[in-house]
Amino acid sequence: MSVDVLEEVFSPKSVAVVGASGNPATWGYSYTAHLLDYGFRGKIYPVNPRYSEILGIKSYPSLLDVPGSVDYVISCVPAGEVLNMLSACSQRNVKVVHLYTARFSETGRQEAAELEQQILKQAREYGIRLIGPNCMGIYCPRAGLSFGYDLPKESGSVGMVSQTGGGASGFVHMASFRGIRFSKVVSYGNALDFNESDYLDYFAGDSETKIILMYVEGVKDGKRFFDTLRKAASAKPVIITKGGRGKSGTRVAASHTASLAGFIKTWEALVVQAGAIPVRNFDEMADIAVSFYFLPPVLGSRVGVVGGGGGPSVLSADECEEIGLDVIPLPQEIRQELKGKGIQIWDWVGNPIDVSIIGGFGFTDIDMLQMMAANDNFDLLIANVNEGVIVTLSRQEGMTARLQSAVDGYMNIKKQSSKPLLTIVGEKSLGRGDLGHWSTELVSETRTRLIEVGIPFYPTIGRAANAAKKLLDYYTRRR
Amino acid sequence: MSVDVLEEVFSPKSVAVVGASGNPATWGYSYTAHLLDYGFRGKIYPVNPRYSEILGIKSYPSLLDVPGSVDYVISCVPAGEVLNMLSACSQRNVKVVHLYTARFSETGRQEAAELEQQILKQAREYGIRLIGPNCMGIYCPRAGLSFGYDLPKESGSVGMVSQTGGGASGFVHMASFRGIRFSKVVSYGNALDFNESDYLDYFAGDSETKIILMYVEGVKDGKRFFDTLRKAASAKPVIITKGGRGKSGTRVAASHTASLAGFIKTWEALVVQAGAIPVRNFDEMADIAVSFYFLPPVLGSRVGVVGGGGGPSVLSADECEEIGLDVIPLPQEIRQELKGKGIQIWDWVGNPIDVSIIGGFGFTDIDMLQMMAANDNFDLLIANVNEGVIVTLSRQEGMTARLQSAVDGYMNIKKQSSKPLLTIVGEKSLGRGDLGHWSTELVSETRTRLIEVGIPFYPTIGRAANAAKKLLDYYTRRR
Repeated sequence: MSVDVLEEVFSPKSVAVVGASGNPATWGYSYTAHLLDYGFRGKIYPVNPRYSEILGIKSYPSLLDVPGSVDYVISCVPAGEVLNMLSACSQRNVKVVHLYTARFSETGRQEAAELEQQILKQAREYGIRLIGPNCMGIYCPRAGLSFGYDLPKESGSVGMVSQTGGGASGFVHMASFRGIRFSKVVSYGNALDFNESDYLDYFAGDSETKIILMYVEGVKDGKRFFDTLRKAASAKPVIITKGGRGKSGTRVAASHTASLAGFIKTWEALVVQAGAIPVRNFDEMADIAVSFYFLPPVLGSRVGVVGGGGGPSVLSADECEEIGLDVIPLPQEIRQELKGKGIQIWDWVGNPIDVSIIGGFGFTDIDMLQMMAANDNFDLLIANVNEGVIVTLSRQEGMTARLQSAVDGYMNIKKQSSKPLLTIVGEKSLGRGDLGHWSTELVSETRTRLIEVGIPFYPTIGRAANAAKKLLDYYTRRR
Repeated sequence: MSVDVLEEVFSPKSVAVVGASGNPATWGYSYTAHLLDYGFRGKIYPVNPRYSEILGIKSYPSLLDVPGSVDYVISCVPAGEVLNMLSACSQRNVKVVHLYTARFSETGRQEAAELEQQILKQAREYGIRLIGPNCMGIYCPRAGLSFGYDLPKESGSVGMVSQTGGGASGFVHMASFRGIRFSKVVSYGNALDFNESDYLDYFAGDSETKIILMYVEGVKDGKRFFDTLRKAASAKPVIITKGGRGKSGTRVAASHTASLAGFIKTWEALVVQAGAIPVRNFDEMADIAVSFYFLPPVLGSRVGVVGGGGGPSVLSADECEEIGLDVIPLPQEIRQELKGKGIQIWDWVGNPIDVSIIGGFGFTDIDMLQMMAANDNFDLLIANVNEGVIVTLSRQEGMTARLQSAVDGYMNIKKQSSKPLLTIVGEKSLGRGDLGHWSTELVSETRTRLIEVGIPFYPTIGRAANAAKKLLDYYTRRR
């Protein structure tokens, strides 16, 4: 039932923005602008008695004046006007209203909580379903719906259910820089009507969604939630962040979305038991999401690590092991192969491969990676492009050639081998003077090429190792 | 004795690069180029019989042909030529040789280890002290010495002692983007003669160095090292990363610098006992270093967190608490002050301050931060500029004005308050298409301004919280 209604939410033929505005500083403006910018192909009806036109489209004084049928309403009116708006929605047979409108139970005030309950009661009487209140609603690039400027206009296979709107929007933006594209994202706020279980249930069955991400602060019905989670996790990977884990977090979560937060350990145990993957923040969520998005299954812990000179390669090994991966010694077959090729340091090179020692011996880190890819002792590979290595250690020409041939090498390995290959392309805190530097451009070019060929990158070895281990645990449990 | 010799190393009047080269792909070229690029003001003598001139400077066939005295030699010759070179150094009364030259004991080969010992023996007979072998040597911008292209040319107050050269160079580069400048950095490799304790002892007494960073894989003499560490840590903050902590790390550390690595727990306990700060990787090292570099002492755990809307502010609280900071409820005095100013949501706003709820009520997140700065209940402040917030949530003009006034506000708070103020400016994995985007430029501008006014930034709340807690522990132990 909820699933059917939600299916329509993601494919509306007409949308009204009630409380639309011509003032670019308002969300009534932004939601209207997004419909235009993201190419919504149905009818768009801005509603506001103070405008006859908004962004070049005719604006209507009231929902009752809109000429056609309205599938979906985005409400940007103040809290006190919602009951009247619902009445108009009812007269126009609107099925779903997204209440961007806030200042309800999340304020902790009794009269606001009471108004929220009245709204729910009236919506139920009218047969209108609600998304929110106090949320950013839907981002669905295929449908032309968005809640942010500059989010990707292309669709992908990641779905997201998020109690927080700012967090969802920030996440979509950040994850898009790592190559992820989304099927549908819903920010649901106070979950007055549709709640986290309804959305999760929908995404579990949605054929456009291959990976589900969730951010929740609290759940309305624990049993139903974990039952739904188990069902969803049996169909596809589900990655969950719980917000409001501590004393003060609980306090804030209560004010933010009026829900009580549980205790994190029990929570994480239940999430794992249901077959889903708990993560602690949005960075970790992005790492795991990008791994499922791009990688084949991780089926063992034996990792080959290539790249990084000296100390960074030592630390690579430490961080992989501390996470629970197994940095095995270089297999004898590879040593013999190196020896057979006349590589003088055949007995010295190890795993991780310290690139600072291999120069001038007639083989490269990519050659080593290829040997590891072909060797049965390795379950997965990590190639460090530039963590702990300054790109400007060499001059532009040399470094450009090196990074280009590295990406070519990774591409070949990806084609020839079914082993997961994770790459490390470090971030740096660029200032004004560094933005136009060739090394910045080279690193950006490298990232873009990696995304284009479907090879995920991570900012640090530690984060790549963590992602690989979480995938390994996931696939191990499923076998 | 070692200290006096090292003092001269950082102020040589003449440097010879033995094995200098006109081929830009070689280190013999790079070391010569660095002396020119970084403005070394003494005599520069490239030495190589195959060149009469390198980079526009006269090159000499042998050290014996150099006309003036030579204070410091950088050796880029192959391992097999080092004994002959030392003999020439002895005839020219050279006191210190930096052996960039490698392929010694770190290869694990007996003949290479034996050659290394012969070199040590001969150097001792000649009275020549050695840096290295298998290392990048000295970066000292004041002296015009460098081991990398594009490292800062200005001096600062951070000293670094690093067994790894690539790691040191990568660290200097990365930390420079966060505003750190260095007094002196030494990459010391195999520590054949001068070892980690000699360098640490020097940095402990060096008036140019206010903060000491170390990366070590193993130590030659444990008792002397921890005695020196205690002495150094009583004088200034010492932050240490240990490489080679695990099974495979130990294996790699052995091949990399021919030293056995200890067990990490005992190690970390001893480091803390000596009054120094153990960290796990270069990112954490940068976070702690930037904190000591820019912040006043952190003397209590009660943190005020401002910025980030909804979920991100909930997660901020979680991450601060999980690290051990205390996200206290908003003090009543601040509530009363808000109420007195007629701010309608005086009873609703909390700590962390969810910026998504405060718009339109006549006060800003900066106003809140100022109240927290003036309130005795807070020991430190964290301002989230953009983690979990997409800069493109608003349009360019609004977001630009917002970030500019935020930095102005932080500046005022820094002037008026002695409380540590940490800011969060997230990184993102930029690709080709994002580099020229206004939001990227705005974030870069913001970072640059923060550095200019001496306010440190961190890529995530979790990393800022960790740095603050480590400083708190440090200052608590010292009281």
